[in-house]
Amino acid sequence: MANRGMLIVLSGPSGVGKGTVRKAIFDQDDNKFLYSISMTTRKMREGEVDGVDYHFVSKEEFENEISTGGMLEYAKYVDNYYGTPLKYVNKMLDAGQDVFLEIEVQGAMQVREKISDGLFIFLTPPDLMELRQRITGRGTDDSATIDKRMTKAIGEIDMMQNYDYAVVNDEINDAVEKIQTIIKAERWRVKRFLPDYRKQLGDVFK
Amino acid sequence: MANRGMLIVLSGPSGVGKGTVRKAIFDQDDNKFLYSISMTTRKMREGEVDGVDYHFVSKEEFENEISTGGMLEYAKYVDNYYGTPLKYVNKMLDAGQDVFLEIEVQGAMQVREKISDGLFIFLTPPDLMELRQRITGRGTDDSATIDKRMTKAIGEIDMMQNYDYAVVNDEINDAVEKIQTIIKAERWRVKRFLPDYRKQLGDVFK
Repeated sequence: MANRGMLIVLSGPSGVGKGTVRKAIFDQDDNKFLYSISMTTRKMREGEVDGVDYHFVSKEEFENEISTGGMLEYAKYVDNYYGTPLKYVNKMLDAGQDVFLEIEVQGAMQVREKISDGLFIFLTPPDLMELRQRITGRGTDDSATIDKRMTKAIGEIDMMQNYDYAVVNDEINDAVEKIQTIIKAERWRVKRFLPDYRKQLGDVFK
Repeated sequence: MANRGMLIVLSGPSGVGKGTVRKAIFDQDDNKFLYSISMTTRKMREGEVDGVDYHFVSKEEFENEISTGGMLEYAKYVDNYYGTPLKYVNKMLDAGQDVFLEIEVQGAMQVREKISDGLFIFLTPPDLMELRQRITGRGTDDSATIDKRMTKAIGEIDMMQNYDYAVVNDEINDAVEKIQTIIKAERWRVKRFLPDYRKQLGDVFK
């Protein structure tokens, strides 16, 4: 039987660049992670494909999943649900596949409660000015909205203490390399390594 | 002020090849660790230099260090003391230097009690036959002695659960690379990263 895969959770404050870093990791040739496709109740946009961009479901289906404990994590934004179905993630992990989630900080804490042996990596800005620039740089928000988002982001950065590792997103390639180093090293953590090693050594440690 | 350095402890059962792996790490050009020189009461051998191979001291001096809490770890083999002076290690760590210890498993557990934020890496054999071959391969012991050493080694392997990481010493270069990956990743562990990051962000997290 295959060893259970590792659940890798990449999170961090809004505007830190999680999506860009995740895409850079998945664009690499030797990428072996499975990306968990989110489920949402929002309408499919032009060019999107069901089961590729999202699993598109109705509000009733989503709320049914929530009430039957079927969501690993979820949140509601502007009247729409977004979340990660637990079934798919567990199936892949049981098959020995590593699964990679890129989610918001609220969701990450829900995951930690359900899959405690996951690897939790926090992507964080080099400094707060830089974060403000990124948030402002989107050019879509007024000053009051930006202030509100900054306050939220600072609260989110403070959640770093609930994670295993923190990586500064200063330069993308650098952040990607650090995340890959962390994932590599984590395989040799005693809590992950010992069960298989004991099996391999055989009777001695029964 | 410099950030406190990281204490890296490499240990593992007798015969696993700790010394060889440690030498390979220190032979690398970009090695930046300080190696902590042990203190011993055994006689200096020809070619050895005091303060390079060991700090050579008298039995009285060593026992004085023990009784005043001056040893980070120590053990007695065949009437001679061997150990690591605490003062030197702390001085280097406080100066922001990473310090590397290669010690026996009994000593490593003493270190864990005194410097709990150390990084503890366990070097382990690919399998028990291999370990027996290495122990036998020294060619100096009779069969009863080898059995005794194997029993001891198995007990030592079981101590792996008290370590942070475990690395199989299958192929030396491979083990060295894994250890370096672990040390790199460990710098981004939240518990090591957060204090400095908070300082850097300034007032917000006071």
